[in-house]
Amino acid sequence: MSSRVVTLVTGNENKLKEIVKILGKALPFELVCKDIDLPEYQGEERYIISAKCKAAAQLVNGPVIVEDTCLGFKALGGLPGPYIKWFLQELGPNGLHRLLTGWEDKSAVAVCNVAYCEGSHKLHDIQVFRGEVDGRIVEPRGPTHFGWDPCFEPLGYTQTYAQMDKELKNTISHRFLAFDSLRQYFESESNVLENS
Amino acid sequence: MSSRVVTLVTGNENKLKEIVKILGKALPFELVCKDIDLPEYQGEERYIISAKCKAAAQLVNGPVIVEDTCLGFKALGGLPGPYIKWFLQELGPNGLHRLLTGWEDKSAVAVCNVAYCEGSHKLHDIQVFRGEVDGRIVEPRGPTHFGWDPCFEPLGYTQTYAQMDKELKNTISHRFLAFDSLRQYFESESNVLENS
Repeated sequence: MSSRVVTLVTGNENKLKEIVKILGKALPFELVCKDIDLPEYQGEERYIISAKCKAAAQLVNGPVIVEDTCLGFKALGGLPGPYIKWFLQELGPNGLHRLLTGWEDKSAVAVCNVAYCEGSHKLHDIQVFRGEVDGRIVEPRGPTHFGWDPCFEPLGYTQTYAQMDKELKNTISHRFLAFDSLRQYFESESNVLENS
Repeated sequence: MSSRVVTLVTGNENKLKEIVKILGKALPFELVCKDIDLPEYQGEERYIISAKCKAAAQLVNGPVIVEDTCLGFKALGGLPGPYIKWFLQELGPNGLHRLLTGWEDKSAVAVCNVAYCEGSHKLHDIQVFRGEVDGRIVEPRGPTHFGWDPCFEPLGYTQTYAQMDKELKNTISHRFLAFDSLRQYFESESNVLENS
């Protein structure tokens, strides 16, 4: 067992719980959580997550994982996308659904970007992992304690994220897909990590 | 006449023309324009404009003026607000109007934030000037070459920004109000500027 520590930067305890469940005991290092105020840029999602990761690596001065979620409505050309948290904050899941009143197309894409950087000496080397789930925006159904989950129904399911059993959600979600790619990356790189 | 030079950071020629018209010959310095890629943060508008101004002052290494525009819909709790440019880009003025289909309240606030910083030695001293105009979002009317102007009708007028005579618009607009405050600030500080 390595004694290496990787810092996951998040202030959202629900997210942390989900991520820990997804990663399970597969990781060859200890995962600790820190709530640090990171700059959030406007722009393309890959630019946003990379800049966030760079800032985190500099502040933590060690290996870091950061995460960013987007919810893009196809009718709105992918928006609110990276700005979804502000829209959720102001409108709630109900208002998100209402935002599409003027359009027939209710389809949406839930995206999770996860980035890893080994530390402030490796700022040019940011690994980004992306998980994407197609679905549609519906009138909210299910518990309302986890963000926009009540108004997102993934393609091929009749339940919203909020109505789903956590075990099921955590094997199909955009967050699962992104963190599962990260887990695979770590597994393939584990010799590098163990020897560092 | 002072030989002092202040750099206005913008890549939008239409904006520059408007600003030059607003400021007229009242300024006690030469205004030059530079198109520099500045970081745009997410968050509160005052934080966004201050961070942008700081970055500009560091890059230009001299006195800078930066500008940021928000268009907030009351029904959406002030959003898209600082993210309006992405929404305009994806949806056009028509789509902005369509975004409010689900709400009776079409009222909106056009905001211009202008920030001035004397240079990289004065990063703690950012002056912010804010111009705000109430209005409502309507079906686009008038020429479409200037952003969301066709869908914003200022309170007390029957024309949209786009339909208005430029002379009129430039004496009532959010941009006018912000740059007029900046002009007044420079006038009151002109002795400081002239002696620097």
